[in-house]
Amino acid sequence: MPGGPRWDRRRVLRTGAAAFGGAGAGWSASALVANGSAAAAPTDGPARVVGPSAGAETVPVVGTHQAGVDTPPQAHLALVGWDLREDAGVVGLTRMMRLLSDDAARLASGTAALADTEPELAAHPARLTVTFGFGPRVLRDLVPAGRRPRLDELPGFDRDRLDPRWGQTDVVAQVCCDDPTTLAHARRMLVKDARTFAQVRWIQQGFRTARGTVPDGTTMRNLMGQVDGTVNLAPAEPDFDPLVWSGDDALAGGTFLVVRRIRMQLDKWDRVDRVGREVVVGRRLDTGAPLTGVTEFDEPDFAATDRFGFPVIDPASHVARARSADPRERFLRRAYSYTEPDPARSTGEDSGLVFLAFAADPARQFVPVQRRLDELDRLNEWVVAIGSAVYAIPPAAPQGGYVGQQLLEGKSTGEKSPS
Amino acid sequence: MPGGPRWDRRRVLRTGAAAFGGAGAGWSASALVANGSAAAAPTDGPARVVGPSAGAETVPVVGTHQAGVDTPPQAHLALVGWDLREDAGVVGLTRMMRLLSDDAARLASGTAALADTEPELAAHPARLTVTFGFGPRVLRDLVPAGRRPRLDELPGFDRDRLDPRWGQTDVVAQVCCDDPTTLAHARRMLVKDARTFAQVRWIQQGFRTARGTVPDGTTMRNLMGQVDGTVNLAPAEPDFDPLVWSGDDALAGGTFLVVRRIRMQLDKWDRVDRVGREVVVGRRLDTGAPLTGVTEFDEPDFAATDRFGFPVIDPASHVARARSADPRERFLRRAYSYTEPDPARSTGEDSGLVFLAFAADPARQFVPVQRRLDELDRLNEWVVAIGSAVYAIPPAAPQGGYVGQQLLEGKSTGEKSPS
Ligand code: HEM
Ligand code: HEM
Repeated sequence: MPGGPRWDRRRVLRTGAAAFGGAGAGWSASALVANGSAAAAPTDGPARVVGPSAGAETVPVVGTHQAGVDTPPQAHLALVGWDLREDAGVVGLTRMMRLLSDDAARLASGTAALADTEPELAAHPARLTVTFGFGPRVLRDLVPAGRRPRLDELPGFDRDRLDPRWGQTDVVAQVCCDDPTTLAHARRMLVKDARTFAQVRWIQQGFRTARGTVPDGTTMRNLMGQVDGTVNLAPAEPDFDPLVWSGDDALAGGTFLVVRRIRMQLDKWDRVDRVGREVVVGRRLDTGAPLTGVTEFDEPDFAATDRFGFPVIDPASHVARARSADPRERFLRRAYSYTEPDPARSTGEDSGLVFLAFAADPARQFVPVQRRLDELDRLNEWVVAIGSAVYAIPPAAPQGGYVGQQLLEGKSTGEKSPS
Repeated sequence: MPGGPRWDRRRVLRTGAAAFGGAGAGWSASALVANGSAAAAPTDGPARVVGPSAGAETVPVVGTHQAGVDTPPQAHLALVGWDLREDAGVVGLTRMMRLLSDDAARLASGTAALADTEPELAAHPARLTVTFGFGPRVLRDLVPAGRRPRLDELPGFDRDRLDPRWGQTDVVAQVCCDDPTTLAHARRMLVKDARTFAQVRWIQQGFRTARGTVPDGTTMRNLMGQVDGTVNLAPAEPDFDPLVWSGDDALAGGTFLVVRRIRMQLDKWDRVDRVGREVVVGRRLDTGAPLTGVTEFDEPDFAATDRFGFPVIDPASHVARARSADPRERFLRRAYSYTEPDPARSTGEDSGLVFLAFAADPARQFVPVQRRLDELDRLNEWVVAIGSAVYAIPPAAPQGGYVGQQLLEGKSTGEKSPS
């Protein structure tokens, strides 16, 4: 029987399971003895496989921000929304965030989580990031007023058709990864470790383009076929920091996340020809260039008119309506396509966009834009929001601490944790 | 207004939509005129973007076999199961297969489908393959006895807990691709073009490992963490052809596909420690080596005993039970992991394996193995089949024809199509 570190590891596994409400090792000792072989041959401990570059790539947390915000979007998303259990309270949430922060840090570095039941599935991080957030109810009920960042639920929008199934939750984790198996494993570890404290309300899966299909940095295409994400905040530009990272002392280094689950009515969209589709957005389908330009990143000229005197970019087009005269009304979009089989729909699927926006102040940056689109946007005829939520995204965990600690305990290092 | 080829293309689009039950271009002419600009700026026709190698790679159909069987598994799966509409009959099925075969051939080569509404989403084939199959009812009702391959529905298995939601359908398409966006688009094109003739019963989405995460050819890991697919038929070995491609004259160049949707009870599996897990399968978790060996491809030694005289590989383990003494009872496994959000389950998810097996004769090759596993397999405690279906996979389309033509019309080239 191999000793030393292996047994240590097994002890950790068992302690982990016992401490957090799980059952112990369920494989009965007698079965092992009956087999005899088990004690001789099987091994313990995670594989230390080093994959080729794309699988081995990690996204370290640098400075005061959680990863997954200014990270170039990975290929796959699992957005997990939890509701805290009745009796969780601040003690439960603290324990949960401690556990989940530790899982996230290990998994992002390609190391198995503590009590990881499939450590080998952690061996290829493929740029895994986990970004945690708290909903308005958590801030209101569990964060003392003195260190509570301001976060209002989003106002209602006329065109929304919200399904509570995709509504506001207490806690969120945006888990992103270039590999779907690594992602599934990481997501499962988090959900398992949160189970004692919180109940999953929804999991929103999404995808963009596989790493390597197109050159890194290529703007993605959504399921309507549009180049989506051209005009966006880039971490390199000077406006990025003030527009993305919170200016609120209570959330320094953090940000806010707006989640909008937007269904595309693709069967209806199919009836629109290319000319019409380009008018709807104000950009070309082939290159993504504005209708007044030639290449993707050309500045749209909203004043340009054709020979009949009509504006070349329809003022009701999505880009004309989405662009604000006020440059402070911008935010970071980090959306993913979704497509879920749905036999109840004649298309057999429910497809759309998990629209994710990060902003220093959603009420000032996101809401005015959303309101304007709600009022008028040619795109509205083919898209409808069916889910909506907002979260405060805390800064990175303090040294030796956990994500959310600054909110739950103040600026301490976590030694005074209530857990 | 740009003329020539662009208008040709638009005509194709409209004719396509009208002929196959779709609506015409729904963007009203008046809206376009009101905008004025539309006629000047937008363009038509698919983008001819050439991506880096992984996105540009195609899997050509060579010889008499459909692609997607002996193709090294791509990263993503969408398995679509359709039921033919009451009034479809052989004429409807013929039309459907003509259309879908054409779509599949174009999309697999990185070309837009006819009437493709998002031609740009076809530009990065990323090894896209589409493999079509017919269920038992289609063979019985729509294929004349003289050219009907034999295909029985699978017998019942005691441990199955089948949900009709995942049951046998009339037609199947196994759509596989390394890129999830290309896949979503291809799947949607097929579903759209089939709509007049067939109703989607289910879509089973699956994934393996992203291209580039691990070296090509690495055996995948399933969501239980096991190396899965080590002992399998490889196209290079002499047994592959006779065991995979049908020996039935009526299906020469074709094969059969067994689909088993197998749920993993991962929360229960979590309670098993590594020793137990390795006993269950008979292989090591880290390397995938048999418990009697050192590296993944070592031959398991089922006779080996430990110093107490017990077999090292438990005779009730999955590999011991799955291996037949009769080498003809082998088949090609080409499984994908699945994980669907399911808020009704305490884990928030329903995960498992879309188990796909190709065999020249499922009744002789697959059924005996499945029956043996059904009787006894340690793994059964954690997995359960919730869906089951079988399909005849016709050979590749004849020159200028469509997939299934040899069954529906005989060996002609399709000139005598009833459509
Ligand atoms: C399914 C729903 C949506 C689709 C398909 C969509 C698609 C697009 C496309 C194709 C573009 C042009 C390319 C680009 O610059 O990224 C664009 C731009 C933009 N969209 Fe959306 N969008 C959707 C929802 C939203 C929502 C909900 C918002 C915010 C409330 C939004 C805000 C923006 C902004 C700010 C721009 C850049 C405008 C500019 O300054 O040029 N979009 N969107
Ligand atoms: C979720 C369900 C299943 C899981 C997790 C699973 C997993 C595995 C694993 C880990 C191996 C060892 C590695 C390898 O050689 O691939 C294996 C081997 C095998 N499995 Fe499964 N399997 C499942 C279902 C099935 C089913 C339904 C069948 C067929 C009826 C099957 C047939 C086989 C065969 C033939 C082998 C190779 C055995 C040998 O000759 O060594 N498996 N499976």
